[in-house]
Amino acid sequence: MAKQRQLKLGAALHGVGGNISGWRHPDAITDASVNFGHYTRQAQKAEAGKFDFVFIADGLHINEKSIPHFLNRFEPITVLSALAAVTSRIGVVGTLSTSYSEPFTVSRQFSSLDHISGGRAGWNVVTSPLAATANNFSKKEHPDHPKRYRIATEYLQVARGLWDSWEDDAFTRDKESGVFFDPEKLHRLNHEGEFFSVQGPLNIARSKQGQPVVFQAGSSEDGKTLAAKEADAVFTHHETIEQGKQFYEDVKTRAASFGKSRDEIVILPGIGPIVGATEEEAERKYLQLAELVDIEHALAYLGRYYEHHDFSQYPLDEPFPDLGELGQNSFRSTTDRIKRNAAEKGLTLRQVAQQEATPRPAFIGTPEKVADLIQQWFEEGAADGFIIGEAIPNGLTEFVESVVPILQERGLFRTEYEHDTLRGHLGVPVPVNRYTKQRETQETIANGSLA
Amino acid sequence: MAKQRQLKLGAALHGVGGNISGWRHPDAITDASVNFGHYTRQAQKAEAGKFDFVFIADGLHINEKSIPHFLNRFEPITVLSALAAVTSRIGVVGTLSTSYSEPFTVSRQFSSLDHISGGRAGWNVVTSPLAATANNFSKKEHPDHPKRYRIATEYLQVARGLWDSWEDDAFTRDKESGVFFDPEKLHRLNHEGEFFSVQGPLNIARSKQGQPVVFQAGSSEDGKTLAAKEADAVFTHHETIEQGKQFYEDVKTRAASFGKSRDEIVILPGIGPIVGATEEEAERKYLQLAELVDIEHALAYLGRYYEHHDFSQYPLDEPFPDLGELGQNSFRSTTDRIKRNAAEKGLTLRQVAQQEATPRPAFIGTPEKVADLIQQWFEEGAADGFIIGEAIPNGLTEFVESVVPILQERGLFRTEYEHDTLRGHLGVPVPVNRYTKQRETQETIANGSLA
Repeated sequence: MAKQRQLKLGAALHGVGGNISGWRHPDAITDASVNFGHYTRQAQKAEAGKFDFVFIADGLHINEKSIPHFLNRFEPITVLSALAAVTSRIGVVGTLSTSYSEPFTVSRQFSSLDHISGGRAGWNVVTSPLAATANNFSKKEHPDHPKRYRIATEYLQVARGLWDSWEDDAFTRDKESGVFFDPEKLHRLNHEGEFFSVQGPLNIARSKQGQPVVFQAGSSEDGKTLAAKEADAVFTHHETIEQGKQFYEDVKTRAASFGKSRDEIVILPGIGPIVGATEEEAERKYLQLAELVDIEHALAYLGRYYEHHDFSQYPLDEPFPDLGELGQNSFRSTTDRIKRNAAEKGLTLRQVAQQEATPRPAFIGTPEKVADLIQQWFEEGAADGFIIGEAIPNGLTEFVESVVPILQERGLFRTEYEHDTLRGHLGVPVPVNRYTKQRETQETIANGSLA
Repeated sequence: MAKQRQLKLGAALHGVGGNISGWRHPDAITDASVNFGHYTRQAQKAEAGKFDFVFIADGLHINEKSIPHFLNRFEPITVLSALAAVTSRIGVVGTLSTSYSEPFTVSRQFSSLDHISGGRAGWNVVTSPLAATANNFSKKEHPDHPKRYRIATEYLQVARGLWDSWEDDAFTRDKESGVFFDPEKLHRLNHEGEFFSVQGPLNIARSKQGQPVVFQAGSSEDGKTLAAKEADAVFTHHETIEQGKQFYEDVKTRAASFGKSRDEIVILPGIGPIVGATEEEAERKYLQLAELVDIEHALAYLGRYYEHHDFSQYPLDEPFPDLGELGQNSFRSTTDRIKRNAAEKGLTLRQVAQQEATPRPAFIGTPEKVADLIQQWFEEGAADGFIIGEAIPNGLTEFVESVVPILQERGLFRTEYEHDTLRGHLGVPVPVNRYTKQRETQETIANGSLA
């Protein structure tokens, strides 16, 4: 009998959290975002829960209005490398922007992380939504949305090329003959493109899983195309299962149009579940959280999506203001959603701000109810799994201890790790080295012509 | 009684080693350069020996003739972060080039490493000697030597500015009032210079040691000036104690001319000691190593210093060829030394190549003899300590087990750690936040005018 299709689970580690005032919660560790002991405990808890990976998000520009976690937090490459050393099976995945970095450096750092972790690395490719980021990187202007995605597409081609610099059996290391490597299995990329010219080779071998897993997190049209073409996994976000299904089908169809099988890309919505022993307890936990946010902070948080627009200039209890084109060049899919939602439901600015600051999570209730929702999304074609964020302090622990056992009992989630690598956990293929593939194809043709 | 001045010791971890054929040694682990278990054991051995820090060197361009360790090795930021998680007291120091990176990213990564390690991070600033490096970074040309040092100087000013973005007590994190930070203690750098424009602030706080320790490794005139002006520690190399004394005095005098005390910068020559129970055993170990190198590899190794010049075109047993200006724009101090040495001693190309491939270490002999030499360099003003490289497999273990106890017995080296941070170990000052200093100065003036 074929084994039941298995859920994938990631744990987003984000210190004091994504909620603007979550750090005020009585149980919150206020320095969590720069507390390596805290990150270690979280990663080890996720590993105890047999999660596929931990996930570290990122950003490259802050100002006075940024949420507390953004102001002072670990940089992903460093903290993932450190977490790789204190875990043994769980994947280590982090965000790094292609708009303000060098493909040689970044592909090398992720490859090095992949070696350190024994094949557990993943890279979440983003393009940096905030225009002011340019000011931190000696750039005159922030590339617009389509240009950022053209850069990202070429960047990933370079990274995948550099990762194939050495064929898997290039390092012979024969002490007797003195031959350390086979020069025929070393390849220069010699990439010359619109944005990058990169010679190579990379100064590190391919890892146990061939190449780090590539995640992609944009939900715009350009983002979905990039994901379908280049990514192994997609980090997304939806408010309803219907939106989730539509996105899922869209990306899987696009992937097929690039010649991939539908299983070669896994789609993982981010959720922030709140679990309680009863429905009422879960609701109380949500209200306790929502009450921590004051309106001034909620407006500032909203402004972040709109190029740090000052929303305090508008009346709070009138309809959400018309912002014209503002926000089209940064968090486009979010700003579109906010506008659409406000118009459809006739929301005031205050309502929009409060809901955005502390949205009531779609996954809230008893462990059984949260497990039911997960199963529904998974089985009805809205997700291959989820990235679990902590809506409230200890949210990850509660999820691991109360929801995961239910998913395991239902046969939806592993009870033990069955693989060593992140590609193994996720069930995405190990990419064959392009030069090895080329040689094998040529050999097949040569053998054919002899026969 | 004042405590005796204490030696500083670093351990250069470099996998299969700096010798071109060291990997052929019977005891060598041939995948050591990408073997995290090996790095962990080395770092923990150095920590057991109460070393000040481990050190990871780096380079950004390879070709077929690069030495084995360079072809396939860990990237420094990643492996240092991982090592920080498996050690608790020893410093973690690594090389990163200012010629092909962004100050916002690099100062952030070192700061993050500094937080992960609890104040144990150090950055060895280099400028990338190899011209072909430009080909890996979409650059039309490699900046020349003076320009690289102008870039590095400005880069360090930016990094130090970003590291001061937040004053030490900026994060108040008061749950009751909802105040996470004091906006008066958040500062934008707004740097506008010849090479960089960087707004800031950095999205991470100052660490336990204020700022990561800055190492500098160039020994040219520009390198010495940069070191004296901006560095806390200097990684250098000398063949004789006389050269060491001259360099030491030179850098200390330059530091004084920038208003520093002589103790604020520590000078650490790199050495690769070979220790034996007897003098003869030590010599045998050296010869065993030297015999691993064949002449073809020795010539290729030599060529690396001269922009990968092909030395196989010259007769082996005639005087070292006249190379004109070749090598002036890459490893300048090394190529000058090689030329001078060949001329002075009338060496043939074969002799130069063999000696460069496997130089007989200046620190060779019994543990007592090696300890004597270390003490002599230390007491006669040629060094504040040393960075110990592994000339042969297990060289670090042998040094820790046989030489360190002698240095400890003589009162020259600690028997227990006395500090938590790398600045503490090295005895270099914690830089006061520039804005805090400014405020305190203004308050002093204000108080003075009231009095």
